[in-house]
Amino acid sequence: MINEAYKAMLGGKSVIRELSEYATARGAEIGYENVLDYSLGNPSVPCPQRFTDAMTDLYATAEPVALHGYSPSLGIPSVREAIAESLNRRFGMDYTADHIFPTTGAAGALAHALRVVTKPGDEVITFAPYFPEYQPYVDGTGAHLTVVPADTENFQINFEAFEAAMNPTVAAVLINTPNNPSGAVYRAETLTRLAEFLRAKQAEYGHDIFLISDEPYREIVFDGGSQPYPSRFYDNTLSCYSYSKSLSLPGERIGYVAVNPRATDAELIVPMCGQVSRGTGHNCPSSSIQLGVAKVVDETSDLSVYETNMNLLYDALTRLGFEVVRPGGTFYIFPKALEDDANAFCMKAKDYDLILVPSDSFGVPGYFRMAYCIDTEKVERSIAALERFVHEVYGR
Amino acid sequence: MINEAYKAMLGGKSVIRELSEYATARGAEIGYENVLDYSLGNPSVPCPQRFTDAMTDLYATAEPVALHGYSPSLGIPSVREAIAESLNRRFGMDYTADHIFPTTGAAGALAHALRVVTKPGDEVITFAPYFPEYQPYVDGTGAHLTVVPADTENFQINFEAFEAAMNPTVAAVLINTPNNPSGAVYRAETLTRLAEFLRAKQAEYGHDIFLISDEPYREIVFDGGSQPYPSRFYDNTLSCYSYSKSLSLPGERIGYVAVNPRATDAELIVPMCGQVSRGTGHNCPSSSIQLGVAKVVDETSDLSVYETNMNLLYDALTRLGFEVVRPGGTFYIFPKALEDDANAFCMKAKDYDLILVPSDSFGVPGYFRMAYCIDTEKVERSIAALERFVHEVYGR
Repeated sequence: MINEAYKAMLGGKSVIRELSEYATARGAEIGYENVLDYSLGNPSVPCPQRFTDAMTDLYATAEPVALHGYSPSLGIPSVREAIAESLNRRFGMDYTADHIFPTTGAAGALAHALRVVTKPGDEVITFAPYFPEYQPYVDGTGAHLTVVPADTENFQINFEAFEAAMNPTVAAVLINTPNNPSGAVYRAETLTRLAEFLRAKQAEYGHDIFLISDEPYREIVFDGGSQPYPSRFYDNTLSCYSYSKSLSLPGERIGYVAVNPRATDAELIVPMCGQVSRGTGHNCPSSSIQLGVAKVVDETSDLSVYETNMNLLYDALTRLGFEVVRPGGTFYIFPKALEDDANAFCMKAKDYDLILVPSDSFGVPGYFRMAYCIDTEKVERSIAALERFVHEVYGR
Repeated sequence: MINEAYKAMLGGKSVIRELSEYATARGAEIGYENVLDYSLGNPSVPCPQRFTDAMTDLYATAEPVALHGYSPSLGIPSVREAIAESLNRRFGMDYTADHIFPTTGAAGALAHALRVVTKPGDEVITFAPYFPEYQPYVDGTGAHLTVVPADTENFQINFEAFEAAMNPTVAAVLINTPNNPSGAVYRAETLTRLAEFLRAKQAEYGHDIFLISDEPYREIVFDGGSQPYPSRFYDNTLSCYSYSKSLSLPGERIGYVAVNPRATDAELIVPMCGQVSRGTGHNCPSSSIQLGVAKVVDETSDLSVYETNMNLLYDALTRLGFEVVRPGGTFYIFPKALEDDANAFCMKAKDYDLILVPSDSFGVPGYFRMAYCIDTEKVERSIAALERFVHEVYGR
């Protein structure tokens, strides 16, 4: 019998996807180069040449039966070890291979992490603005997602609202830094305060509260800065990562869960992820891609274009009178719309072939997101269109 | 908070995996070539050279941003079309790309198919002997798996037991042909009778009953035969496939769900699979592997070794007095043990470095499985060991 719940979900189309489809259709009319498409967070830079070389070498020299053979259900040991060592070098952690569970990107990582540290009926807290797919990710586990209102001053954490929302049914807190859609990079002070608060609540409630840290933008940080590593601040942390952005491999679906060695039941969490996989049909990322990524585990694509684009857009938006928090990283910027109704604002922008995503689905009304993982030349053209748009529609 | 249900699952180790680990450990002592390891269904032949060539060509010529870019959430259209056309050519179906949902192997396909056509509390029927992972696959959806006792005469379907088990809460029937572990190939008469029975029950109960057909061994059929295509017999069929065996790519996690165009809500089922993915963290198989497989979609590895091995084993087992149904396909054979307790039988075989899997976890007591996806030379040596074993232990 057809499952009516999934059937009903067919109605609820993602705004981002709808706008992206509109951009593609509009591109067919006027040439896609003329659509100033800021809808999708799809990396615009190629993977490092060394990744391509590593894969070419594997195809030339590895035994096919080994290259394409079943990965052990917890991932290929040498790959897990390479990831652990890279994290230890970069963030002063002490992971072993046993703390690393390779997954199909951050979506796969979150699907496992959420299931391991919540049960149906539990509450998971996240902070607005947040990636809209967190809703189906959490729904899929049977837990309930609670969204804490945004700190619109600087898109760190609104601790007052967080403290009001916290209660004993909260099993996990889900953060995303650098943040999609705001571009905010949680500062060390934010993570310190978050960790102190969670430790106090663990003591008060007498149970663990896990921090699930979604980190696909970890390497895209501007002004020579870096993202403080959340797991350094709080023992009960599961770091969820994807190579989609850092290596520009979004279609390869490769990432991991990294379990803080000091977390409760740390030695059981990766084996438990293996049990989760049996129910969800996961069974590890591609074996060849695991082996290829392990060879370039400390590298990134040339990510500099994102900072170039951010600076161009931030300067233009500020000059045009937008209220906007300067992004510390990612390839997103999240300005306040020029009218209360962000949907109306973004609809009007379409007349200038500017494809902007209204903020409502990110849990904050009245803003819009621009995903500037596009060519700088197009960013420059879009600024001229933005000027015309705000001048002609809003008289600025 | 740690999920106690997944934690409790850690105790229940798979017998197959335990035996495989024993074989590896024993191999470290005496040399793996001396372990007559029939535990794991891991293809022993390489992928076709044309697959390696296709991948090498993609890495040499494709734009990395396209090769590794996000797959649309329902799969890459050209890949879906190539799969549809291949199935149409081979089985006289009339699939379009819209009926094909690429997945991470058959496990991913089953995870989606089961969720789309059942809801928590529904019943799913399968037939012994069956692949033990069906239990967690179905558990993960919230539905309940009912196992119909085996037809031990020829490992087709025990219709008497099936009719007794059928009831109105059954939302789906799960078959696996060619079958792991028996090697049975369901005959056209079996599929015809199955389809007629399901159609009658649909009419009687006034609701759909879907047939979920798990077909990873579809291309491994002996004696020049072929597997009748189950979807040809019954409209409400979701065919679940993996390229793990036919192309020897088990670690690449690539397969699909193919929805019979005449199924109820056929046009909705693939989009519903896309909704299922959002909750399970699936998000398509590797983009590059999708593109590579689409180029060799009608090919297989050289699978002839499996038939060679089957004939050697079948003849030897028969000669040694085992009751055994001759496999029509796969790389498994499923003889009756020489004592009632298959676990005891397989334990004793270990003294001869024969690694046999007892049948209890397949839902039939008193048998054992041999996965003969190993070198023929080792099969020949194993026959000598088998002779000594049955002579010395059972006096034959």
